[in-house]
Amino acid sequence: MSTPTSTRTRSHWGWGFADRFPDGAARANLGKLLGARLGFEGLSVAEPVPLDAATIREPRIQPPSHSAALCSSALTERASHCYGKNYRDLIRAFSGRFENAPDIVARPTTEAQIAPLLDWASSEGVAVIPFGGGTSVCGGVEGDVGDRYRGVLSLDLTGLDRVLELDDCSRLARIQAGATVPQINRALGTHGLALRHYPQSYELATLGGYIATRSGGHYATLYTHIDELVAGTRMLTPSGVFETRCLPGSGAGPSPDRLVCGSEGILGVITEAWIRIQAKPIFRGQASVHFSSFSNAVEAVRAVAQSGLNPANCRLLDPREAALNMVAFDGSAVLILAFESASQPIEALLRQALAIATAYEGRCPDGPRLRTTRAGDPDEGASGGEGAAKSWRQAFLDAPYLLNVCVSLGVIADTFETAVTWKRFAAFHEGVIARVRAAMKEACGMGRISCRFTHVYPDGPAPYYTFLAPARRGAEIEQWMAIKSAAGKAVVDLGGTITHHHAVGRVHRPDYDRQRPELFARALSAARRAVDPAGIMNPGVLIDG
Amino acid sequence: MSTPTSTRTRSHWGWGFADRFPDGAARANLGKLLGARLGFEGLSVAEPVPLDAATIREPRIQPPSHSAALCSSALTERASHCYGKNYRDLIRAFSGRFENAPDIVARPTTEAQIAPLLDWASSEGVAVIPFGGGTSVCGGVEGDVGDRYRGVLSLDLTGLDRVLELDDCSRLARIQAGATVPQINRALGTHGLALRHYPQSYELATLGGYIATRSGGHYATLYTHIDELVAGTRMLTPSGVFETRCLPGSGAGPSPDRLVCGSEGILGVITEAWIRIQAKPIFRGQASVHFSSFSNAVEAVRAVAQSGLNPANCRLLDPREAALNMVAFDGSAVLILAFESASQPIEALLRQALAIATAYEGRCPDGPRLRTTRAGDPDEGASGGEGAAKSWRQAFLDAPYLLNVCVSLGVIADTFETAVTWKRFAAFHEGVIARVRAAMKEACGMGRISCRFTHVYPDGPAPYYTFLAPARRGAEIEQWMAIKSAAGKAVVDLGGTITHHHAVGRVHRPDYDRQRPELFARALSAARRAVDPAGIMNPGVLIDG
Repeated sequence: MSTPTSTRTRSHWGWGFADRFPDGAARANLGKLLGARLGFEGLSVAEPVPLDAATIREPRIQPPSHSAALCSSALTERASHCYGKNYRDLIRAFSGRFENAPDIVARPTTEAQIAPLLDWASSEGVAVIPFGGGTSVCGGVEGDVGDRYRGVLSLDLTGLDRVLELDDCSRLARIQAGATVPQINRALGTHGLALRHYPQSYELATLGGYIATRSGGHYATLYTHIDELVAGTRMLTPSGVFETRCLPGSGAGPSPDRLVCGSEGILGVITEAWIRIQAKPIFRGQASVHFSSFSNAVEAVRAVAQSGLNPANCRLLDPREAALNMVAFDGSAVLILAFESASQPIEALLRQALAIATAYEGRCPDGPRLRTTRAGDPDEGASGGEGAAKSWRQAFLDAPYLLNVCVSLGVIADTFETAVTWKRFAAFHEGVIARVRAAMKEACGMGRISCRFTHVYPDGPAPYYTFLAPARRGAEIEQWMAIKSAAGKAVVDLGGTITHHHAVGRVHRPDYDRQRPELFARALSAARRAVDPAGIMNPGVLIDG
Repeated sequence: MSTPTSTRTRSHWGWGFADRFPDGAARANLGKLLGARLGFEGLSVAEPVPLDAATIREPRIQPPSHSAALCSSALTERASHCYGKNYRDLIRAFSGRFENAPDIVARPTTEAQIAPLLDWASSEGVAVIPFGGGTSVCGGVEGDVGDRYRGVLSLDLTGLDRVLELDDCSRLARIQAGATVPQINRALGTHGLALRHYPQSYELATLGGYIATRSGGHYATLYTHIDELVAGTRMLTPSGVFETRCLPGSGAGPSPDRLVCGSEGILGVITEAWIRIQAKPIFRGQASVHFSSFSNAVEAVRAVAQSGLNPANCRLLDPREAALNMVAFDGSAVLILAFESASQPIEALLRQALAIATAYEGRCPDGPRLRTTRAGDPDEGASGGEGAAKSWRQAFLDAPYLLNVCVSLGVIADTFETAVTWKRFAAFHEGVIARVRAAMKEACGMGRISCRFTHVYPDGPAPYYTFLAPARRGAEIEQWMAIKSAAGKAVVDLGGTITHHHAVGRVHRPDYDRQRPELFARALSAARRAVDPAGIMNPGVLIDG
């Protein structure tokens, strides 16, 4: 990235940086294109409510004097820490509605500044919401905590952004929770190492957020979730420090790290982690395989996923996604396969995977492409690749920015993602598509849904669905909720998980509550009370109480 | 296995089957060989106290009438469920001391028979110890529960031994917790599938035991712990059923399955699990690399572990282990590398790994050996391979039987295992060896210690140590305890985990308590009370309360 993160202004209502929001004329043109592509008529351009005209309640509490220097109740701070970044969040902020905004935003720059804030919050009955990049798409960071709390403190961790220790012999780094992957990789890059984890949010999201939400990253197989890259964690709870030792593989009791992974802030504030890093890849190869039949493509992916070849990328785009992402326009489904290695050529692996995929009537019009980078080359991160893979990756990173445009144009746009076994997939997929289409038709008159696989396992894929529907201005949230609820209900009814890597937050609670064992919720609540007796940590996500 | 498990008599005091214990003359010869090899003088043969001459207290409780048909208080049942199988367990049973034997042994054959037993135990204050193959080496299944309980019920799960459901499309099977890997693979073998998980205990240990203890299995890299093979679990707690859905990869909250994995019976009785199974390998290849320098060998293994090649086997034997296992007698350390695949040749991978290893002054005198098996061939399980790998594997499976002989000969023999980062390894290894040698010298006058790597990760190895020392008859337990305590203390002091795959139980508690976060213990205790309010489940292992 040519522009350092810190000097660019973030949008006060939408995804990412303000300079990425097109002007009105450009959006009007995009509206014509999008309307024609999707069949949505009469899309018009609206403008966001300026922040100084927004509705936001007055702060209800004052920061404690011992921490006043870290704290702010400025409008910009409170508004920018009010929501995550899903469609509902954006539409509320776009409309100038900053409901349940935090009363205070604290920005510690050292871990030592955090415990006094937690002590104060526990004794004063103030809810504390750990806040990283603010990229939650499931209502994971908002102040909708009910009347039990006197106020809400948003604890912004982005000031804790350093790589504290590097063990290059063991390929491990101790990293503060507020660091982003670009920040981490700038620090590691001089050693030829990198954290290979690039979720769609990676420009902004933080390591602590990844761990708290069990994010899904770079690899389509094997090390898919951040969980697998976590070798040790350090979390500040209201009852003190919870720190595990950095270990390559322990079998001593239930894994404490796995309790931290996915805890969504309810147990404490993750402040550091030991993370498994890797040598930057030198050998890379990729191929795009086109399929006339989506079900053939699915079978091909299953065969690759069960082959043990473990490609770094194994993303299947259905025909609609392939077209939207400009990698195929003939109704083909497209599988993007890629391998990478820092130590040996991967051509044989790529050719083996390709042979498996093409055996299911897949066509590889451009053949495999192989590249060797030199050690001194800059890390390509998530933006590398060529051909279909390059188009796909750029579209992948631009997609959240497109959401801003959709909000302005009156298009409801959101995603949901899951994982399900191969055996269930065909009926699951058909059922999900049918139910979400029906919900869009009822709520919006029409709508489009598409699917890709983001990650694949020997036992099943992780399908990722995108839906787009024309909004009725003023009724967007109700419409969105109807579709989103239908999607969550369908996913869990039909045997999937309510989330593969977006987390639970508030949005997925109703269906998460149906999915998880009731006794696990009881156990987790009890564990939470043991480390957070006053129940101040991010109340409302994941569990009650 | 030619003889079905069920028709062979288990030793009443030692490891495994009674017919594997050599007669007195054979043991005397083994004593001469072992004494000469180890430098232990004057080893003599002792005989086990017959069961009918053993010391065992009378049962303190009667089974509930509703479950009486499942229950027994017969001497053989109570004695055979009294201990696991570490050195201390064997010496106590050999000496006829059955301390804290369970009062009742229940053998359910259906899951429905279990809940009434848990209800009764909760209301009567009876401790319940889930019991699988009885192969715990860390005091995980014994009745040393204190005076708080009126009695102890050992719940033998081996009657729940069936594969209930097979989803071959997704490579998943729903399997009862009391099944052994041989039983499971007999059921799966006709479908060309197998559970590739072969701990040293695999003839006897059960799936539920593997999950409860986070066992380490077949693969040296990637899918090392059973955790990675668990797609869903079902556990009966005193408060009801805890069941997760079978999913290829969920990111919804902290993983409930990961709370079950390693729970060592304190949360409930694991009754079933969905397990990731695999196609039986067809392509296999292996190579043995000899190193004059152990530290060169360690560096070679690190390079292989960080290469991304992920061999199925990557076991490094130090010179003493290589000699004891008869794979090298010239003071070399030996690395056994193996790859396997059900779908494509692995020769290129093996050659790449071999090239990495030999670059560290490794010699591969026999070259790589490649084999292709046909689909109809019987699964080779843990007994396959050729050359050094075959010798090693046979010795690996015989080792626990050798422990029986050691007990009879007055040789203290035990193991401990851990995982530690590559950076720490050299100092760790030196420190552990020095401290355990010093402890053996003080307790026994002398002793031998050796090391192998059982599993390796990009961030560190899992070293496995074996120690042998001459016992003083009658003082064995005190001597063993002195050595074992020194080992556990050294492992945790020097930055390792108290266990990579043997679990915590009672034996590892003091050092586990130093290793795990105090707040994790509090959270786990609270979680336990939420599902087991009376605290009946396997009290004393893992945590207090």
